[in-house]
This record gives sequence, C-alpha cells and structure tokens, in this order.
Amino acid sequence: MKRLLTGFLLSTSLGLGASPGMAKDQVTGFTLENGMEVVVIEDHRAPVVEHMVWYRAGSADETRGVSGIAHFLEHLLFKGTETLAPGEFSATVAANGGTDNAFTSYDQTAYHQRVAADRLGLMMQMEADRMLNIRLSEQDILTEREVIIEERNQRVENDPSALMREQMRAALYLNHPYGTPVIGWRHEMVTLDLEDALDYYRSFYAPNNAVLIVAGDVTPQEVRALAQTHYAPLAANPDLRPRDRAQEPPQLAARRIEFADPRVAQPYVLRSYLAPERDPGDQEKAAALTLLAEVLGGGQTSVLTQKLQFETQKAVYSGAWYSGTSLDDTSFGLVIVPTPGHSLDEAEAALDQAVAEFLQEGVDPDQLERIKFQLRAAQIYARDNSGSLARRYGDALTSGLTIEDVQAWPDILAAVTGEDIIAAAREVFDPKKSVTAHLKTQEAAQ
Amino acid sequence: MKRLLTGFLLSTSLGLGASPGMAKDQVTGFTLENGMEVVVIEDHRAPVVEHMVWYRAGSADETRGVSGIAHFLEHLLFKGTETLAPGEFSATVAANGGTDNAFTSYDQTAYHQRVAADRLGLMMQMEADRMLNIRLSEQDILTEREVIIEERNQRVENDPSALMREQMRAALYLNHPYGTPVIGWRHEMVTLDLEDALDYYRSFYAPNNAVLIVAGDVTPQEVRALAQTHYAPLAANPDLRPRDRAQEPPQLAARRIEFADPRVAQPYVLRSYLAPERDPGDQEKAAALTLLAEVLGGGQTSVLTQKLQFETQKAVYSGAWYSGTSLDDTSFGLVIVPTPGHSLDEAEAALDQAVAEFLQEGVDPDQLERIKFQLRAAQIYARDNSGSLARRYGDALTSGLTIEDVQAWPDILAAVTGEDIIAAAREVFDPKKSVTAHLKTQEAAQ
Repeated sequence: MKRLLTGFLLSTSLGLGASPGMAKDQVTGFTLENGMEVVVIEDHRAPVVEHMVWYRAGSADETRGVSGIAHFLEHLLFKGTETLAPGEFSATVAANGGTDNAFTSYDQTAYHQRVAADRLGLMMQMEADRMLNIRLSEQDILTEREVIIEERNQRVENDPSALMREQMRAALYLNHPYGTPVIGWRHEMVTLDLEDALDYYRSFYAPNNAVLIVAGDVTPQEVRALAQTHYAPLAANPDLRPRDRAQEPPQLAARRIEFADPRVAQPYVLRSYLAPERDPGDQEKAAALTLLAEVLGGGQTSVLTQKLQFETQKAVYSGAWYSGTSLDDTSFGLVIVPTPGHSLDEAEAALDQAVAEFLQEGVDPDQLERIKFQLRAAQIYARDNSGSLARRYGDALTSGLTIEDVQAWPDILAAVTGEDIIAAAREVFDPKKSVTAHLKTQEAAQ
Repeated sequence: MKRLLTGFLLSTSLGLGASPGMAKDQVTGFTLENGMEVVVIEDHRAPVVEHMVWYRAGSADETRGVSGIAHFLEHLLFKGTETLAPGEFSATVAANGGTDNAFTSYDQTAYHQRVAADRLGLMMQMEADRMLNIRLSEQDILTEREVIIEERNQRVENDPSALMREQMRAALYLNHPYGTPVIGWRHEMVTLDLEDALDYYRSFYAPNNAVLIVAGDVTPQEVRALAQTHYAPLAANPDLRPRDRAQEPPQLAARRIEFADPRVAQPYVLRSYLAPERDPGDQEKAAALTLLAEVLGGGQTSVLTQKLQFETQKAVYSGAWYSGTSLDDTSFGLVIVPTPGHSLDEAEAALDQAVAEFLQEGVDPDQLERIKFQLRAAQIYARDNSGSLARRYGDALTSGLTIEDVQAWPDILAAVTGEDIIAAAREVFDPKKSVTAHLKTQEAAQ
C-alpha cells in the first residue's frame, strides 16, 4: 500500500499561516460533545475536499520496548473492520475517484483522503468505523509486520545516513522518547504482536483524542451536520491520560558520534542542538529560531552558504534547519559537506568559525527583509493549496498548539528582529546540548 | 536513616564463590509455595544471622518518566505498616542489638538486618509485614522526597565526576533503561508522588518476586520452619510480568562526550564499552572479561599500570573494571588520569596504544597465574564473611542467575585461558559500542 512515514523527512521549516495584512484563512473550529475537535478550512475553487483525521498519538507515545507500534498500527488500519473487508477502505476511496493515505510521526498519526466534495459523508462513515471497530487477525499481523520491516530495510538499513541520524537522535535525547525512531528499532519491530497493536489502539484511538480537519469545497454547517451523523455517536475514552512524557534532564556534556560505513559516498558533519519548540501563546523564540535557520541556511544568499561555499570554499553544501512544531523539545540542525581535500575536522572548524562570526556580525537587515518578503510570498502561495493548509492545522493541533496559535504565527514571524535572532542563536548554540556527528567512509584507526 | 545506594558504586569485580578444590559453600535453596525463593548459607562460628530480602525489581524496572521511584520506595519502606509505626522497624532491630539497612540498584532492591540468631523470626515477621502492608501518608511522601533529593544533591549534583558518569551512561544506552540513573533524574524526582510509589510497590513487592537469603548460625530446617510461619502465608502477585526490558539496538557509532566543570581538580579520560553479562549456564565470556579487567587494571603489575604509569609515565592512574552480574548488557570500563603536562587527547591515545599493544602481545602467563592465585586466596578469605556471601547470592539471584551459576563461577574463572581473554577483549573493544568521556576543568573554546 502507499503510506508515508513523515518522521523521516525534515519538516518544511516555515510552518506558514495567513500572512500579515492578508485576510485570515477561512478557518472554523468547533468541538463535538464526545471531545472530538473539528477544523473546517473553506476553499470553494474546486469541488473537492481533503478529509483528515489526526490522532494526538505518535511514536513518542509508545511504551518503551514496543517501538514502531504506532506506525505498525497505522498500516493495520487498512485491514478490515466489522463492516469493511481488508483493503475495502482504500478500494472504496479509489472507486469513488479519490486517493487516500496515512502517516505517522513522533507526535501524531493521521489518515486522509482527497475526494469529490459530495463523498465526504462516505469518508467520515468509513473513518469513524475504523476509529473503534478494527478487526485484526494473527495473519494480518504476520504479513503486515513483514511490510514494515521491509520498509525499515529500505528507508534505514540500506542508508548509512539514515542509520547515523538514528544513532544521533538516540544520543541527542537522554530521556525523552524522541530518541526512539518512528519506524521502531528493528529488534523490537520483529516482536510486535496483535496485543501490542490493540493496546495502543485502545489507549489512543478515540474521538476525544482526535482532530478532524476538512479542507475544501464545504461549509462549516455541512461539516458539522455530517460530523454529528458519523463521529458524534462514537464513545469517548474515559481513561485517556494527559500527554506528559518523560522530559530531558539538564544536558551537561557535548556529545560526538562517529559513524563509518563503506557505502558512504560523501562524508559530512551534522550537528544537532536541543531547542525549544512552539508553545501555545508562546511562539516568539520558536519564530526567531525559524528565521535563524533561514538566515543561516536558506538558499544562496544565506550566511553559511556565503561564508562556507563562496568565500572560503570549504563546503560543497551547508545548511541549517529547525522544525518548531513539536509537542516537546525539538532540535536545531547544522550541516556542512566539505569540498574534496578538506577533512571533516576542518569542515567542522569552518562551520563553528562561520557561526561565531555571524554571532559577532549580527543579522544583515537587508537579508532579513528579503527573507520576510519571501515568507509573505510563500504564505500567499500556500493559500492556494488547501491540502497543505489542512496539514498545517492538523500538525499544529496535534503538537499542543491551537487554531489561534497557527493564525498568530505569521505576525509573530514578521515581528522578529535581528536582535531576537542573535539572542535565540546564542541560547540554542550551547555545546552542552549538542551532538556532533561525523559520517565517513572509513573507520578511523583505533 | 542509613541507606546506601549501591548503584553508584563500582561493584567488586570478581564475584567470588567457593574456590575450585575447596568444599562448596554450605548453601541450601528451596522455594515456598507462594513462589518465594529461599537460600540458606550456614556459618556456625558466631551466633548471628544476616537476614536479607531481595526483590527482583530495581530502577531499570521503573516506568519511563518516574525515575527514582524504586529507590524512593526503598526509603518509604522504613515508614509504617498496619502494625508498625513509622521508624519502629529500625528501632526494633536496634533494640534487639542488631543493625539494618537497604539498598537499590538497577536490577534489585534489598532489605537486610544483622542480628542475634534467635531474633530471626522477629526479623521475618517485620519484613513480611512491610512486603504487602505499608501505609504511607502524603506527609511521608513530602518529607522523604526531600531526603532523596538531598541525597542526589550530595552524591551527584555536587560531584562533577558523578554528573559526567550520569551523562555518559545515558549516552552508552540508546534504548535500555540502564541509561537512567538509579537515584533518578532530578526533574522527575521532584514530581514523584504517593501513587507512583504504590504503583511500583503493588507491581513488584510480592513473595513470588522476592528472594530470601539467610546467612549465619541457622540450619535450613530452622529457616524453612520460620519462613513457613512468616512468609508462606503471603499471597503471590498473580499479575507479575516477566522481566523483559527494552534491549539495545545495534550500536553503530562511537560516541564521545566532553564534560567541563570548574570544580574539576583532576581531569581524566573514561571509556565505557557495552559488554555482555553473566547469563545462566553461559558465563564463560563474562569470566574472560572479569579476568581481562584484572589483567589490564588490577593493581601494580597490571598491563595498563605497567605501560602507562611506569614505562611511558603518561598516567598518574589507570584502571579497568567490569561488573558481570547484571540482568542485561553491562559495561566494561577503562580510565586514564594523565600526568601533568599531558593533554586528555594524549592520554587517550596512550591508553589506546597500550590496549593495542596488549592485544598484540597477548596475556603474560605468569601474570595470569598470579591473578588466579590471588583469586583463589580471595575466595578462601571471602568464606569468612557470611554477610558478603549472602550479598553475592542475592545479587546473582536477582540478576537472572541461579545458585548453580554462583557455585560454578570459580571453576569457570579458573578455566579461562590467555587466548580466551584476548578473544573477549577483541570482541568487547569495539569502538562502535563505546562512549569516551573527557572530564576537564575548562570548557573548550567553541
């Protein structure tokens, strides 16, 4: 089948909402009596809808030792229910001219279909059915477990860079479950069984742990009526617990890892810093870090590109990224791929030097103005894609944020100053909270 | 009160039992109907007994996010029960001329008293009482939580070396709960509450999860009769789950950490390798590693001392240690404290050089013979202390081993060859499974 696992992708870093001075997105939110949150994003330009159900449950909500179960269950939701035969869900979507998919990340699991607007009720009927009524056989477990293990082989085991990022994340998080890969550790995946899947399902799949996002050619009234019919009858889970996960202790020691694999064609240096995330009503620091990533690594005019690729020519590529939409502490990343003839140590020193210079020199006001202009443009273009708006709201609402936070975000980004960016950089670039990784072809002599 | 937390101490590395050619320890084992295991170690030279109850539950059995609860509960067991007032337990032991204490480690929690042999029944009566009947108030929680936090302040927060070892362990274990400190992460300790303590108590404190060790001036018949009276009436916990914890994924990348603290008087380099532990019926590799630690770091004639302190004079101290008595993967450690004028990088290179030379040169047969002779002598002396014999059996039996494994251990150690030691060293000294830590006074310039 055709499911993505977004946990492996770098999230797009900007997380745009409506732009300042623009009309806000036509977004309406309400909550059903059973606790299911609903968000409607109107876009009447074409007679289609995006129907998404997001669960506030991802891989970081798993019990230690059963890693991968969130993603495994996502696969298993395409098996049958009391009324749908295995595979019938997707076949029905396709027979109605639509497409469907699902994905799992650290903080959320989401199921979505894109169909003609008049099929919305059918989508809700089927999605509501599999929220509480899946029927799984031992055979389903055995066959689908092979699928996820093969997925891990393809995405991780065959890719030294992915393997290294896994080890790096495990070193970045000393206590928090973000250190465990979304797809799971292989030795635990092979043991996942029916009971593990049903435990996770019963704990987290319930209307009071779900967010319904409908984007497209519908009105809030229509969505409300259909949701009342299909989702409102579902019983809430009275035992749903608050999402208070194990948090990080003080990180007191810079960490380094060295990963050598003969399959590596291009060595590079990767650095991750533990970094604060967007919190409800408190997004200013995350906004500054979002712009910091752009200033440092966003394209040809960025600071790292200028200093490392053009001026000193130490790098064939450099970059920076930050993904602020996260329930708990996230990370800020830097990368440098050295030009031939420069060692990884030299490249790392050049990267540190470039960052140190940047902290001294401050943010170029013209560059910041250009980035903000690009942001505004991107925000305007983003409104053309109601599917991506739907994802933005779903991602935010399952990461602890509110509709208001999403809508306030563009203004908060626009208000960030060069001084804010430098202050945020000085705070986040703390070696004690970092992991530096060297990916290389050869093992160093012991 | 007077409780120790052995998790912070390096275990004694040899784990001796009876020596080859000697009479076996006078050890008798049996199991009560409720599943409680009993071990009697006879020693009639003085009219005293050591009475110990060991639970197969330690900090590594905690739920993620409530670290420190195993140790906290150990403190709370000195509060009251239905029939004993708070503090009455220890006061009664003292009034009967005895001493009592308790300790918590990764794999076990143990309570013990040393008293006149005719008081054994009283000890059992009180210990059985607090196995199932503790009564805790909110006030007990508040006051005792202050005590454990102060204990952490003293043992960890005020000691840069302890802080570094904590960060190092968290980096060594990517998935297993051994990466969490026994005493707990401070930010989690401050949130521990009555419900957390009772959850742990109800899950793990039960006769079918306990091992009773009685050592001293008693016969197995006497212990059996008293245990029947005091422990046999206790109900087993029917929901006790197998101890299958999250295991390590393949470790693929050497890790390094750098810890700088102005309180550091003496910088040094510490290296830990993930290493196999003693498994029931399969202790040969652990025996080779036990001897490897002695060959490398046990005293003035050891390889590291010779090469690093005497020959090259790069070190004022060097050492090696290994603690094989562990339920899951343990670690093998190396340390070098450089002489003034040698950097930590130089010291680390010298350490690696010394180990590489050792792997080339092999084990000196005379040195191995001397170590084995010392082992035999230590085993003979160890039999003079029935208290330490009791600890050895308790530790082993709550770490997945059997009485037979403990008794087989001296013969297995005696059979280890130089080739076994080199083979074990080559296997365990895998950089990918290691963390190297530099403890220094000054932060490196960024």
